Amino acid sequence: MMDWDIRDLIRRALQEDIGHQDITTENLVDVEQRSRGIFLAKSAGIVAGIQVAQQVFRCLDEDIQFTVVKDDGAEINRGDILAIIEGSTRTLLMGERVALNFLQRLSGIATRTHHMVDLIRYEKAEIVDTRKTTPGLRYLEKYAVSVGGARNHRFGLYDGAMIKDNHIKAAGGIQKAVSTLRTRIPHTIKIEVEVENLGQLQEALEARADIILLDNMDIDTLRQAVELTAGQALLEASGGITEDTLVEVARTGVDFISIGALTHSASSLDISFNLD
Amino acid sequence: MMDWDIRDLIRRALQEDIGHQDITTENLVDVEQRSRGIFLAKSAGIVAGIQVAQQVFRCLDEDIQFTVVKDDGAEINRGDILAIIEGSTRTLLMGERVALNFLQRLSGIATRTHHMVDLIRYEKAEIVDTRKTTPGLRYLEKYAVSVGGARNHRFGLYDGAMIKDNHIKAAGGIQKAVSTLRTRIPHTIKIEVEVENLGQLQEALEARADIILLDNMDIDTLRQAVELTAGQALLEASGGITEDTLVEVARTGVDFISIGALTHSASSLDISFNLD
Amino acid sequence: MMDWDIRDLIRRALQEDIGHQDITTENLVDVEQRSRGIFLAKSAGIVAGIQVAQQVFRCLDEDIQFTVVKDDGAEINRGDILAIIEGSTRTLLMGERVALNFLQRLSGIATRTHHMVDLIRYEKAEIVDTRKTTPGLRYLEKYAVSVGGARNHRFGLYDGAMIKDNHIKAAGGIQKAVSTLRTRIPHTIKIEVEVENLGQLQEALEARADIILLDNMDIDTLRQAVELTAGQALLEASGGITEDTLVEVARTGVDFISIGALTHSASSLDISFNLD
Amino acid sequence: MMDWDIRDLIRRALQEDIGHQDITTENLVDVEQRSRGIFLAKSAGIVAGIQVAQQVFRCLDEDIQFTVVKDDGAEINRGDILAIIEGSTRTLLMGERVALNFLQRLSGIATRTHHMVDLIRYEKAEIVDTRKTTPGLRYLEKYAVSVGGARNHRFGLYDGAMIKDNHIKAAGGIQKAVSTLRTRIPHTIKIEVEVENLGQLQEALEARADIILLDNMDIDTLRQAVELTAGQALLEASGGITEDTLVEVARTGVDFISIGALTHSASSLDISFNLD
Amino acid sequence: MMDWDIRDLIRRALQEDIGHQDITTENLVDVEQRSRGIFLAKSAGIVAGIQVAQQVFRCLDEDIQFTVVKDDGAEINRGDILAIIEGSTRTLLMGERVALNFLQRLSGIATRTHHMVDLIRYEKAEIVDTRKTTPGLRYLEKYAVSVGGARNHRFGLYDGAMIKDNHIKAAGGIQKAVSTLRTRIPHTIKIEVEVENLGQLQEALEARADIILLDNMDIDTLRQAVELTAGQALLEASGGITEDTLVEVARTGVDFISIGALTHSASSLDISFNLD
Amino acid sequence: MMDWDIRDLIRRALQEDIGHQDITTENLVDVEQRSRGIFLAKSAGIVAGIQVAQQVFRCLDEDIQFTVVKDDGAEINRGDILAIIEGSTRTLLMGERVALNFLQRLSGIATRTHHMVDLIRYEKAEIVDTRKTTPGLRYLEKYAVSVGGARNHRFGLYDGAMIKDNHIKAAGGIQKAVSTLRTRIPHTIKIEVEVENLGQLQEALEARADIILLDNMDIDTLRQAVELTAGQALLEASGGITEDTLVEVARTGVDFISIGALTHSASSLDISFNLD
Repeated sequence: MMDWDIRDLIRRALQEDIGHQDITTENLVDVEQRSRGIFLAKSAGIVAGIQVAQQVFRCLDEDIQFTVVKDDGAEINRGDILAIIEGSTRTLLMGERVALNFLQRLSGIATRTHHMVDLIRYEKAEIVDTRKTTPGLRYLEKYAVSVGGARNHRFGLYDGAMIKDNHIKAAGGIQKAVSTLRTRIPHTIKIEVEVENLGQLQEALEARADIILLDNMDIDTLRQAVELTAGQALLEASGGITEDTLVEVARTGVDFISIGALTHSASSLDISFNLD
Repeated sequence: MMDWDIRDLIRRALQEDIGHQDITTENLVDVEQRSRGIFLAKSAGIVAGIQVAQQVFRCLDEDIQFTVVKDDGAEINRGDILAIIEGSTRTLLMGERVALNFLQRLSGIATRTHHMVDLIRYEKAEIVDTRKTTPGLRYLEKYAVSVGGARNHRFGLYDGAMIKDNHIKAAGGIQKAVSTLRTRIPHTIKIEVEVENLGQLQEALEARADIILLDNMDIDTLRQAVELTAGQALLEASGGITEDTLVEVARTGVDFISIGALTHSASSLDISFNLD
Repeated sequence: MMDWDIRDLIRRALQEDIGHQDITTENLVDVEQRSRGIFLAKSAGIVAGIQVAQQVFRCLDEDIQFTVVKDDGAEINRGDILAIIEGSTRTLLMGERVALNFLQRLSGIATRTHHMVDLIRYEKAEIVDTRKTTPGLRYLEKYAVSVGGARNHRFGLYDGAMIKDNHIKAAGGIQKAVSTLRTRIPHTIKIEVEVENLGQLQEALEARADIILLDNMDIDTLRQAVELTAGQALLEASGGITEDTLVEVARTGVDFISIGALTHSASSLDISFNLD
Repeated sequence: MMDWDIRDLIRRALQEDIGHQDITTENLVDVEQRSRGIFLAKSAGIVAGIQVAQQVFRCLDEDIQFTVVKDDGAEINRGDILAIIEGSTRTLLMGERVALNFLQRLSGIATRTHHMVDLIRYEKAEIVDTRKTTPGLRYLEKYAVSVGGARNHRFGLYDGAMIKDNHIKAAGGIQKAVSTLRTRIPHTIKIEVEVENLGQLQEALEARADIILLDNMDIDTLRQAVELTAGQALLEASGGITEDTLVEVARTGVDFISIGALTHSASSLDISFNLD
Repeated sequence: MMDWDIRDLIRRALQEDIGHQDITTENLVDVEQRSRGIFLAKSAGIVAGIQVAQQVFRCLDEDIQFTVVKDDGAEINRGDILAIIEGSTRTLLMGERVALNFLQRLSGIATRTHHMVDLIRYEKAEIVDTRKTTPGLRYLEKYAVSVGGARNHRFGLYDGAMIKDNHIKAAGGIQKAVSTLRTRIPHTIKIEVEVENLGQLQEALEARADIILLDNMDIDTLRQAVELTAGQALLEASGGITEDTLVEVARTGVDFISIGALTHSASSLDISFNLD
Repeated sequence: MMDWDIRDLIRRALQEDIGHQDITTENLVDVEQRSRGIFLAKSAGIVAGIQVAQQVFRCLDEDIQFTVVKDDGAEINRGDILAIIEGSTRTLLMGERVALNFLQRLSGIATRTHHMVDLIRYEKAEIVDTRKTTPGLRYLEKYAVSVGGARNHRFGLYDGAMIKDNHIKAAGGIQKAVSTLRTRIPHTIKIEVEVENLGQLQEALEARADIILLDNMDIDTLRQAVELTAGQALLEASGGITEDTLVEVARTGVDFISIGALTHSASSLDISFNLD
């Protein structure tokens, strides 16, 4: 995402929060007054979005000094200082909430991701994210996933081809769908097919799909799928996989495990902003 | 929020997901093909955002038929149909994910809010939200809170005056801060003061603050605050209040309880979209 | 209003004036040529918008030197220099008209406001503005009103509740309207009711409205209204109040007097821009 | 101005007024309620902007019925109905102020223009406007001038070449400035030169300027200028011309008289909007 | 590209052409007048962009009747009617030039592409486009290429990975670059490596690149490259390939031939628009 | 065109190319790595757009050093260095293609223009461009035409009046069309009439058109037109004029020759960008 797109996102967030004026701060705090503030961890986790927080203040005021103490990806504990910021008191008070809204959400995602990645750190399988992101924040949320140690799946409908049930019906079979698509999309993009059982898997393999998504299969079926595939395609397990089932799924031998909850249900990480 | 602002939000979300093209659907599904899809609850909760989901499809294609079965505010159970949609198969496939991303998030917020509101349904205190919302989605998230049965606090820094610690320092005391602000902001807006102890509460009362936020006080202190105030100002309890402590806080007699987790840590409600 | 929103406003104004090119200046004046210009008062008044004028030139060219001589709020007389500007001759010639269009309009508003505020400087009543502003310039025009010494009323329909005749009818009476609104809008916002006679005033008081707008009442009725209210609500006189009637209205004891003509009918203040 | 640019202007004006919500109307008036409203003249004048008023409501709600009774250019008297509008009560209440802000301003300009045009209706000279317009509203304000019966001067720096004192200095004389410009700008655009005395006028005539602006000349000098020119160029009188001096200036025989006050100092025409 | 993005593109084009007003048409042609116009081929070729032309008029006026006679992809000859359009004469005159500017350029691209595709119709190799497109028109120009019968290469830097010389240096060798990238980009995207000789080709094959771009190789080297590769990767010939060398290149057995001139140097197809 | 409009254009072009990320460069090239690159002519021609190329890189990264060696208007030969650029390797790799897409197209136009201007360098006639430009790039393409040594015709429908066949019909004759327009458009703009034969030319002269476009006339008729006109109006020859017919047309004595192919069919000039 280009810097100016992130700035646009930040501006919209600031506009949404400040509107025509911060009526409290602009009427009580002198424009010359300066302060120092710190971002402080109130629980343990992984930082993500500290540069975004910095840009929130920079958007309001180019003269802000922002010192990153814990950069994106750092493991933090309760009480750790994440960043120190010095400048106009008005800027600090007006940017604080928006900066935290970004930083807490992104760190929440990185933290949950990191926890799950850690659970299967001895397995070959890699965790990937999904398109189940907050509208408007996909790029940043996928970035937080990568900070947490997992991989990004396609960013949208434009950079990956995923043939689902309805595409198969429309095309007249898996074979037909794959071969049609092969001649129409840029040759730089792989073709993924979503299958629900081993019969469909067999068809997808015959159609020479590059990637096969195994949708909602139980552990036993996943194991058979891996065996049947024998390396002819990349395999991706998907569907309701949680901290409880993750290790077992990873051990079936699939290449990827996609988890929507990384982005759609992560809690904010508890971080506070305090002025001296 | 004006309709066109919501449409802009939706367009950005669709743009983010579709980019230059849905390479799978536009290459496999005939432009004339039509389908029927349903939104289906996969767990119990409160619906919020069904009109937003409708607008997602309308943004792509004005000829979509969208029949709302469970409108915003309805209690739903696993297996309930929320809406039926008929139209171009391409539109259904291209809008599905974005529609769900809005609908699941907003319903998740309404569901959590409703649960908390229900916990104190026999108390006078009302639950209010905060500014801890997802950047870009504040209006919609606050709307989901109201669908869930709670009240909205100020929408931003422009429509409510909240005097915090640093404002007090900058102004030279609570009395000074309140009286200065009283002469500068529109006379249509009340003045809220955040206090951390009963001494500050006393000062705020003497300054004739309209609303007083009791920050992170324990139950006993809250009770004394209510007694001390004796109806001279509205009282709002705030700070880390959870499902576990909510009832106790409400019973202290405060007027409002503000809870950031309504918006910053609600999980998505599980809803699926299925084509026939 | 955020700085970037003001810059957007200025850019649109420059775009409107310059279009694809200043065909005279860009073809006759060398890009290296530098000049000095001054803003000169051609009649007496109050300056407002000098920073906006500065930003107009800065938008075109960051290297402009702009020295403010008379800042916003200063009383000026014919012949006074308001600001001195040095830099590229092209920039000076291309920005001059737009800078003046802002500066003259805002100073015109501040001047008229100051005159009216001065007329009642010994009374308690405060003058407030209205929503009768030029489309697109509300924030700046309300700022000019505050520079002129009057107060701002609500900025829009979002930061103040004003119950008018049609709202009363729709809600089924003043009492009903006030109590309904009290439960629905953020508790940070006061409720104002517009009344046309003393009977309605009585109802509004019973409904415990925070502010009551006395619409088009004669002096005698205003006086009775003040007496009847006895401090239970803030009173705002409104409707066709001019320089001629202002003092009399103020002496009735109302708290606020709202005047649309501050913004909708102020003449530009005569200011010129001369290059050395 | 393209329709969509006018709609953008209207949207910004509505956005500025309504913000996130009309908290009074949306909480008190049922979404199904319908009303009828009228725009009513409260003083005499010329209507301009009635279509803009219509578009304000249409922007909010496509189902509004808007019947124009007095179209742009019509002479109206106190008590005349200008338009009747039927539709959602919410829409009427939410659009009213913005519609009036446009309509009153534009009608104010048309009214003042018409009055001045009428003063010299027996003379050859035509009144033209200037670039002294409200930032963002140039096209609409120039449109109101034409509705009032005067002509439009250039719309901006892009569609007319005006050589002023500083251009002359930069180019090294009037002759040089005109001939240089003649070879550089599109051959579709005339060249106007601003002169301050008869000596400069002579030079401009020798340079074969198409139009000559006579800046701040007294009546006698204007008369001599007309004589000297003898039809070799179009002559435009400019500088502080008011209702008092207009006729005299027109009688000197100049072709055009430009008047900034048409746009920069017109008062709003008094028009009200009443719901039944 | 979403419909609204195309409309935005069209609006910018119309805005650029019409500006504040079509001063000729709006002042001479009555708003009620209606006409019929036709798009007429003045030379032979392939149509592309007829729907864009339609949308140009629709953007100006929703009531236009536009009948497509030769749809995108049709072969046309001099004298063929491409489309018939009926509606407001003003709309026809104001939209004509912009519609032609799109239609002629896109048809020019489709025509040249079709010609080149036809030259190698008996070969396996497919022609693909490049990123050498007109700024702002990439999607439409790539669409025109596909209408002409060739394939689209990646749309931008986001949907295809292309490792060039400088990437190789930065990564420390082809092997390193490919393996690093393999773990970082979404697993849905193939990796292409640009090589300049057979040694590099060998390295790229060992690194298991999915696609290898053979940059500026002569026919003989291309032939050896095909042999050496033996189907282990897709091969793409690139660099200065013209109508003269195309067939020979195709016969070497490469899979793809990329040609920048399809978009960067196609002439407009000669099409006129005539009103009856 | 204001600088920020050019930057907007560049941003859209970069956005179109880079999308959410340059997946190759951002994953392989270290953010600290720096390089030097040169723009190198690969064929002879005239440079145009070197500042635009510079701004492309500046848009991505303000710290880029860009040294112009051959400025706009310079004649270049194969092998000439046009500019040297130093800075972040990432920036160089990410901006290269977009910079070239602008630079090659604009230089292509300037080169072709210069060639045609040179052909008639001993004649009085001047070459002018048309509105047949690439949508979105009109200002830049017209700029390239002026760099190539030709003149700009009107920029759009707003800054020049061109009465064509259909305007004549709608107005009821040439005389009527010219006189009507004369009273309605700003007096700063000349009136051009398009004629197809000498009879119409005669009418246009009688109507005192300022400029007359001679559409698709043969050499002999052009000669007669010049004679008939005898300096009473500017004459512009138009319609399918190529390198082959240009000199002959110029020798007829017309004032201007307009050529659409300058912009609609110029090939890109061959320029490469090489990193050291």
